[in-house]
Amino acid sequence: MEGLGNEGLGYLGAGIAAGLAVLGAGLGIGNIAGSAAEGTARNPEATADIRTTMIIAAALIEGVALFGEVIAVLLVLK
Amino acid sequence: MEGLGNEGLGYLGAGIAAGLAVLGAGLGIGNIAGSAAEGTARNPEATADIRTTMIIAAALIEGVALFGEVIAVLLVLK
Amino acid sequence: MEGLGNEGLGYLGAGIAAGLAVLGAGLGIGNIAGSAAEGTARNPEATADIRTTMIIAAALIEGVALFGEVIAVLLVLK
Repeated sequence: MEGLGNEGLGYLGAGIAAGLAVLGAGLGIGNIAGSAAEGTARNPEATADIRTTMIIAAALIEGVALFGEVIAVLLVLK
Repeated sequence: MEGLGNEGLGYLGAGIAAGLAVLGAGLGIGNIAGSAAEGTARNPEATADIRTTMIIAAALIEGVALFGEVIAVLLVLK
Repeated sequence: MEGLGNEGLGYLGAGIAAGLAVLGAGLGIGNIAGSAAEGTARNPEATADIRTTMIIAAALIEGVALFGEVIAVLLVLK
């Protein structure tokens, strides 16, 4: 309305944060679960162990990613 | 209409967020399901285990990606 | 409100920091856990050792990533 201001850059930052967070989570969890699927095929008896390992690591990534999304929300609502 | 303003940068941020979110989800879930398909082909008896592993991980990515899309919507409607 | 200022660039920096931190954590932990899942499939008896190694390294990445997220929060609340 009244020209470029600080809030505008905050909106841009929110978009960058939200986008990169999803990109990071997608690449990371995707890599984990892809290997987990291949490992399950090679040795189905280890399914439970593989899945536990996958969920532990995916939860770590998910935690950081949601932290990044919350920062994006903070920037939007600023 | 009245020159560059905050709303414009918000729209730019919304586009970046929406695009990168789809990029991340596509790469991640694509990697998972590609490996799951190969694993199922190599060992069809493990289909159920592989599919469960795939769905758990894909849901985690999907959750973050939808979060990112919601932030993009917030930026558009701001 | 009063035009572009230092705070605006701080918001942009916060978004970049939050996004790249998640990207790095995702790539790093994803690589670790992917290999851990494959290793567990190849030799399930080593599951505990593999998982401990994974958690130590993932915790190191997680620590730096959360540090980056906290810096982003500091930039937002500045």
